[in-house]
Amino acid sequence: MASSMRLVTVGSVAFDTLTTPHGYRKRIIGGAATHASVAASYFAPKLGLVGVVGDDFPEAYRQILHKRKVDLAGLTSARGKTFHWKGRYVGAMGSAETLHTELGVFATFDPQVPQAWRKAPFLFLANVEPSIQERVLKQMTHVKFSLLDTMNLWISVRRAALLKVIKQVDAVVLNDMEIRQLTGEHALIKAAQACLKMGPKYVFLKRGEHGATLIGKKEYFHLPAYPTAKVVDPTGAGDSFAGGLMGWLARDGRASGPTLRAAMAAGVVLSSFQVEGFSLERTVRLKPNEIAGRLKALRSMTRF
Amino acid sequence: MASSMRLVTVGSVAFDTLTTPHGYRKRIIGGAATHASVAASYFAPKLGLVGVVGDDFPEAYRQILHKRKVDLAGLTSARGKTFHWKGRYVGAMGSAETLHTELGVFATFDPQVPQAWRKAPFLFLANVEPSIQERVLKQMTHVKFSLLDTMNLWISVRRAALLKVIKQVDAVVLNDMEIRQLTGEHALIKAAQACLKMGPKYVFLKRGEHGATLIGKKEYFHLPAYPTAKVVDPTGAGDSFAGGLMGWLARDGRASGPTLRAAMAAGVVLSSFQVEGFSLERTVRLKPNEIAGRLKALRSMTRF
Repeated sequence: MASSMRLVTVGSVAFDTLTTPHGYRKRIIGGAATHASVAASYFAPKLGLVGVVGDDFPEAYRQILHKRKVDLAGLTSARGKTFHWKGRYVGAMGSAETLHTELGVFATFDPQVPQAWRKAPFLFLANVEPSIQERVLKQMTHVKFSLLDTMNLWISVRRAALLKVIKQVDAVVLNDMEIRQLTGEHALIKAAQACLKMGPKYVFLKRGEHGATLIGKKEYFHLPAYPTAKVVDPTGAGDSFAGGLMGWLARDGRASGPTLRAAMAAGVVLSSFQVEGFSLERTVRLKPNEIAGRLKALRSMTRF
Repeated sequence: MASSMRLVTVGSVAFDTLTTPHGYRKRIIGGAATHASVAASYFAPKLGLVGVVGDDFPEAYRQILHKRKVDLAGLTSARGKTFHWKGRYVGAMGSAETLHTELGVFATFDPQVPQAWRKAPFLFLANVEPSIQERVLKQMTHVKFSLLDTMNLWISVRRAALLKVIKQVDAVVLNDMEIRQLTGEHALIKAAQACLKMGPKYVFLKRGEHGATLIGKKEYFHLPAYPTAKVVDPTGAGDSFAGGLMGWLARDGRASGPTLRAAMAAGVVLSSFQVEGFSLERTVRLKPNEIAGRLKALRSMTRF
């Protein structure tokens, strides 16, 4: 008998065409669910991806995910084009400039979680329109810990729907700008406190080169970014952070304070590898000792 | 026989007239050396301040420093006016807007370190024109660990003099903007590495609400800011950070890796108190258990 699904990730699977100061890449594999799942695969015993691609999505790209043991039974293939994002990063690569977005089949994404996965205890709702996130949440029957990501667009144009789903998840993962936009508070501590009042038990703050912070009603935990000077392509940094942490939780099976801390460290480490190559170049070929090495280094960087 | 001087701090002693979202204060006690010395006084066994004030500087303000056991034998009183800074903080109080600077007697500041202090092992060169910092450094004969602070103005208009003195100190303390301006590197890791090539063994990065980072050739240590939601007046935050850390080193007597880490934590804690009141309101009346409590909290915020 197959072991049961531990972590379900819902979100985009895409083509990315992008330019960074380190080069240009055309139609490489991208998407939030892709990056999150690959990162999670280093920890989660069994994980599945719910998404949609067009009939132009190459078998070779499926194989990349398959090799990382990401179950693709939830990845629908629809007639049409795969979501395609074109963007570029300039200078310090602090944020991407979107040049073109072709939603393709993602425009009518109506995720159906495979029946066999609906009892999975861990759920990552990657950045998708909030009412879609809510529909997925309703399909799940035994969620132990759910994490939601979102973006400036939804905070601005789907605010009511977003607040409704935020109320139902265990945690949210946001960057500095998103949490300020969501709460109207500039100081991050105040913004996080305001966010907790919206319902979730925890906020994971992604602070880019300033690291990450976990804030709960009785929890405050901060980690620096792993100091890699080699940032090749920031795409997927946030998704691999969320994926790494959800994968860790799925492996551990709990979502208690100490586990959440260790999980966040795993997220920081996975995201530090993610940015060292284009797309999944670096993240698909990590060795356990590389991950353990950075976890150990991260621990030593914060001890006094 | 009096015990010997452990920590000498050189810099401004001033009047501050300022507005923050929490109120307006006129001619309150300010200055980098003031804030640094008071913070250091919680740890350093014996410390002295080198600076200059005008004949308008009230005895009551001297008494504030005296009560904190800051030796004022190096604080010259000159005919004229005390340095007076007028500024305001708006919104998120990320940075001060200077409305008026009246240098007064500080314009001709020519610091003379009292003979009895010249063998002191720890030296903090607070933000002063770099050639003045260098003159002070030359007066000291037994420096074990020197820390230099500076500002955007000197990086821009006294670059050569600044680079000359940076080469001679053990460590520098800079904020994000200053280190980027100094090195031309945007990414903080790269900026810190570039700064180490200028000579100092360590860089202390002040990152405001993002905490602080200690970077050396073989050292990387990060702490979050202590998460106080009560920021009343950011003036002196950086100086109390530097003062707290130098005071800790002066007490410990060493400047090794583990001591530098603990010292930085002390700096983070002192600066978290500093911003909770106008001027020295909060920082002059700290109890040892308040400091110990935040040090402990800071430790627990980074453990996983």
